[in-house]
Amino acid sequence: MDLVTLTDIQAAAALIAPAVVRTPLLPQDDGLWLKPESLQRVGAFKIRGAYHALARLPEQVRARGVIAYSSGNHAQAVASAAALFGIKATIVIPDNAPAVKIEATRAHGAEVVLVPMPERESRARELAEATGATLVPPFDHPDVIAGQGTIGLEVLADLPDVATVLVPVSGGGLISGVAAAVKALRPSAAVVGVEPELAADAAESFRAGARVPWSPADRARTVADGLRAELSELTFAHLRAFVDDVVTVSEGEILDAVRVLARRARLVVEPTGAVAVAAHLKSPRPGKTVAVVTGGNVDPEVFARILSS
Amino acid sequence: MDLVTLTDIQAAAALIAPAVVRTPLLPQDDGLWLKPESLQRVGAFKIRGAYHALARLPEQVRARGVIAYSSGNHAQAVASAAALFGIKATIVIPDNAPAVKIEATRAHGAEVVLVPMPERESRARELAEATGATLVPPFDHPDVIAGQGTIGLEVLADLPDVATVLVPVSGGGLISGVAAAVKALRPSAAVVGVEPELAADAAESFRAGARVPWSPADRARTVADGLRAELSELTFAHLRAFVDDVVTVSEGEILDAVRVLARRARLVVEPTGAVAVAAHLKSPRPGKTVAVVTGGNVDPEVFARILSS
Repeated sequence: MDLVTLTDIQAAAALIAPAVVRTPLLPQDDGLWLKPESLQRVGAFKIRGAYHALARLPEQVRARGVIAYSSGNHAQAVASAAALFGIKATIVIPDNAPAVKIEATRAHGAEVVLVPMPERESRARELAEATGATLVPPFDHPDVIAGQGTIGLEVLADLPDVATVLVPVSGGGLISGVAAAVKALRPSAAVVGVEPELAADAAESFRAGARVPWSPADRARTVADGLRAELSELTFAHLRAFVDDVVTVSEGEILDAVRVLARRARLVVEPTGAVAVAAHLKSPRPGKTVAVVTGGNVDPEVFARILSS
Repeated sequence: MDLVTLTDIQAAAALIAPAVVRTPLLPQDDGLWLKPESLQRVGAFKIRGAYHALARLPEQVRARGVIAYSSGNHAQAVASAAALFGIKATIVIPDNAPAVKIEATRAHGAEVVLVPMPERESRARELAEATGATLVPPFDHPDVIAGQGTIGLEVLADLPDVATVLVPVSGGGLISGVAAAVKALRPSAAVVGVEPELAADAAESFRAGARVPWSPADRARTVADGLRAELSELTFAHLRAFVDDVVTVSEGEILDAVRVLARRARLVVEPTGAVAVAAHLKSPRPGKTVAVVTGGNVDPEVFARILSS
């Protein structure tokens, strides 16, 4: 299977530059640097992969529009990228997604189709077939992986002697790209995936050396609602090739990390976005550590409750 | 009176680079870009001026330590800068300052002296006299102004065709430096100060063409606790030379801006840090606008209450 290369990721960096914020590394007091992707215009790193996937489409194909299915941040990213290209986006969202994510997707001018969770992929495929629009998958595509991998390039540019990069894992698109970039540029740096204990299928798969399925119901238990997907064949191949370990954090550790990020880094972070920091707080590693803070799309009332609890 | 020059500010940028985060401009949807200085290691832009002031001291003078009096963010900035230089900092803080700011100052290794608000400056001067340490003023010093002015350089580098830069005004150190940089590089850009209606002494002074004193009690009414100082002769001279207007916002508009920043920009911002955004929301100007988001040091419980109200 062809894996995404450093060259792919470097080409992606040039293509996505107009659409993404060049996020800084934020130094913390204890050997930790944050990569705050919550500051992207859609509040999450997903704009990198989505914009790159659209930029790579032939113009006449792109003009027929794009479709995505997503529990949230990928939806906003595809909607925002489509708006930047001036094309139509149709987003299929599970009807139990957080309201803030649905509203934000509509605010980008996308048409939103709400369906029961199990039907989202099939409905998206039907719509693509019927309209000629291109389906942009949330993680299982080399262009999406290469776009997310630009985070790895930026980390190495800003902190060349990084020892460990902590990356949340759900479908695995982010860690696939980041690990491909980091291992090409600095093989001695460790790339470590982080999952909730309640959705630890990637950790189990990594240890088993083969993908171990967890039921959607099991994966849906965690408060980290962006970490409920499972690895694809493509992303698992990247994990096997480039990733050093996958560790897990508890629900309480995730919420503690949200509070620490608000207080010490002045960032509004969704629980999903805080898991890498949770792993650092639980068990710091020697040397300079970077935690990718993936997103900040949380209902303000929910965020206020987490801060007050 | 000698005003701070572009050359001074460019020299400051080189000196402070090791200590400050090169904050990005964050594009919003409505012609607004945010300059999120809340992401600095002390949670506020004040590290720029404080670190620069320390960097400019002769080494044998700096070794005797530094003293500051501050209602908050300047205290943390001097404490953090002193820690980076490995020297002692003594910080005189009014005994009614927010707990989060006092704790954060101590966390940087500084000695904290709590005094009643009216005594803070005199006590700081006594301590400096007694110990040989250097007093680092919060705004009334060319080195502090030049350090804050580096924000203006970065704004112009990232958005060369900016039309308006909105800057909170308290003692005026920030707007003095930013305006000196912006007007030197792009005279057609407007630099506009923003104050709370309840502490609008700079706006009144700007219109009168002479400093108009407001009582400390009057200036203390606003929720924006970092905007209760008054202009010095030096900063007022910069305002007269470089600033186009000073506008005001209400307490409600300030709190609305805090909520908007949490929801749309995923930033934890203190009320003081939100006034420039409040001015944009109240009355947007034509062309590209930058709002300087000055700080994010707010008690999490207070922040949660603002979000929930």
